[in-house]
Amino acid sequence: MVSDSLPTYSDVTAAAHRLKGLVRNTPVLRHDALDALAGARIFVKAECLQETGSFKIRGATNRLLQIQEDRRAAGVVAFSSGNHAQGVARAARLLGMPALIVMPSDAPAVKVEGVEADGGEVRFYDRDTESREEIAEQIAAERGAVLVPSFEDPHIISGQGTAGLEFAAQMEDAGQRLDHLITPAGGGGLASGIALALEGAVPDARVWVAEPAGHDDWTRSLASGHIEQNAPGTRSICDAILTRAPGEMTFAIGQRLFAGGLVISDAQAKEAMRAAFRYLRVVAEPGGAAALAAALACLPEEMKGKSVGVVVSGGNVDAAEYARILTGA
Amino acid sequence: MVSDSLPTYSDVTAAAHRLKGLVRNTPVLRHDALDALAGARIFVKAECLQETGSFKIRGATNRLLQIQEDRRAAGVVAFSSGNHAQGVARAARLLGMPALIVMPSDAPAVKVEGVEADGGEVRFYDRDTESREEIAEQIAAERGAVLVPSFEDPHIISGQGTAGLEFAAQMEDAGQRLDHLITPAGGGGLASGIALALEGAVPDARVWVAEPAGHDDWTRSLASGHIEQNAPGTRSICDAILTRAPGEMTFAIGQRLFAGGLVISDAQAKEAMRAAFRYLRVVAEPGGAAALAAALACLPEEMKGKSVGVVVSGGNVDAAEYARILTGA
Repeated sequence: MVSDSLPTYSDVTAAAHRLKGLVRNTPVLRHDALDALAGARIFVKAECLQETGSFKIRGATNRLLQIQEDRRAAGVVAFSSGNHAQGVARAARLLGMPALIVMPSDAPAVKVEGVEADGGEVRFYDRDTESREEIAEQIAAERGAVLVPSFEDPHIISGQGTAGLEFAAQMEDAGQRLDHLITPAGGGGLASGIALALEGAVPDARVWVAEPAGHDDWTRSLASGHIEQNAPGTRSICDAILTRAPGEMTFAIGQRLFAGGLVISDAQAKEAMRAAFRYLRVVAEPGGAAALAAALACLPEEMKGKSVGVVVSGGNVDAAEYARILTGA
Repeated sequence: MVSDSLPTYSDVTAAAHRLKGLVRNTPVLRHDALDALAGARIFVKAECLQETGSFKIRGATNRLLQIQEDRRAAGVVAFSSGNHAQGVARAARLLGMPALIVMPSDAPAVKVEGVEADGGEVRFYDRDTESREEIAEQIAAERGAVLVPSFEDPHIISGQGTAGLEFAAQMEDAGQRLDHLITPAGGGGLASGIALALEGAVPDARVWVAEPAGHDDWTRSLASGHIEQNAPGTRSICDAILTRAPGEMTFAIGQRLFAGGLVISDAQAKEAMRAAFRYLRVVAEPGGAAALAAALACLPEEMKGKSVGVVVSGGNVDAAEYARILTGA
């Protein structure tokens, strides 16, 4: 049973304790112009300013800290389009472990370089013809290394959830309170972790997930009550959140705690990146800007006029692509 | 005597108390790659993430809070290439005062729009044929409004200095300590305020100012012991820090407390903007990146291996220019 191993609020608070001093307390930013565009009070948790440029370091570090001392020398293996890759590589370096990451051959160069800068070894695969899961499992078996999943793991989920716990505390410090929170969702590790955090810290707040059109697996799964898959071959610029389907664990949590899914277009993701540049002066990558895009472009009526938390989950984007998007391409 | 009215450390701590809740506590960011490029431990105080996109809101708010209630209705007047303009416009809005800003006709559009978004009135002038000081003084006299200088004022200086106080406290919280600090300098309000803050909070730390080639008035003034002017007509992309000469107050403080000046090229400022994008995921404007440029491109030998604080002072740059710079233009 998946439900036996699901993390809870206390796992998120334990993770926050464990990660203290190892990850950054990222700022909450806001701007009147964003409030005006959304028709609500928008508070942005800037996880693009996190170590390695995304929230992924939280879950990765929390997971790697569980590995027994005598197994650390064999290292870790992960597969990822880039942000989890960098999180795992950095966490492994912090703990003195070798890391090998299986990455798609079309991953943004900035993400590949991020892994390599932390001493991670990269094995490329072809998105269309190879299975990254099989490659990673085979290498892990050969090396006796630990395979670190990108979302379907209780320690990953509770680690990512620390972003939500931090967000709630920062709002309270500022005399504010979240009515709603929107977060980008691929596999749903961040979203389900945040939902657990808010269940304990701000029980009235409602958690929504944002995802690109064509990859609206969460929206459809939440509506049908079953895990729904995305059609293979669908493309989006939101590379960080393109997964085939919600995980069993993340869906079990999401089904209980998520208010719903919000679907955005690539054009809306780009517009949100431009808004983050202009009004917040932070760099958001396409997938990282999905929740901000939903807030600015298609905020549901029930959130209008409310305090809406938005997670900008990553900022790893190649300069040339970013420049093209800034200038409206 | 200028020295009679100079602010001190206690003015900076009083300003910090006054500004609590009115300005943002901006984050301190770092990245291994910056340390490697500089050959030192680099800690970046990201004032580009401040309200209005630069530190200027600190001094402006601290200054406007000094205006007696019965004088507030007549409002304030300021002249500025853009960041002080936005700081004054925002501070005036917070206190319910009208604001008119005299801005150069070639100011970046994003800065003009920032002023207007806060309800500020803009009067353009021609950098080459008109005197902004005369225009501003005349309008202030006509309206009975208070003229808010951009640096030559004890409350402006002590307000800007709160960035340094905050930086010192954040470093202490992280178990770190600044050996040196580099900040961009135009008129020197931020730099002299920070120097006062560190004189009290981290007395051993040495404060350096960074400025663009052709506008190295601080470097020459500190060397000669007299206020030196820049040649008229010299251009640089660092629009935020192009002033004719140090102020009398800021120079009196700087002469006593600054370790020296560091001169950077426009190309080095652009390289620092690219580094801030890539490694910190924050948007820095050219002048705002001057200190980071000095750290990465020409760090003096005595700072190598040390803990060096760097202030990125602003992030207000037009998207098209930023895109050109990101792609190496």
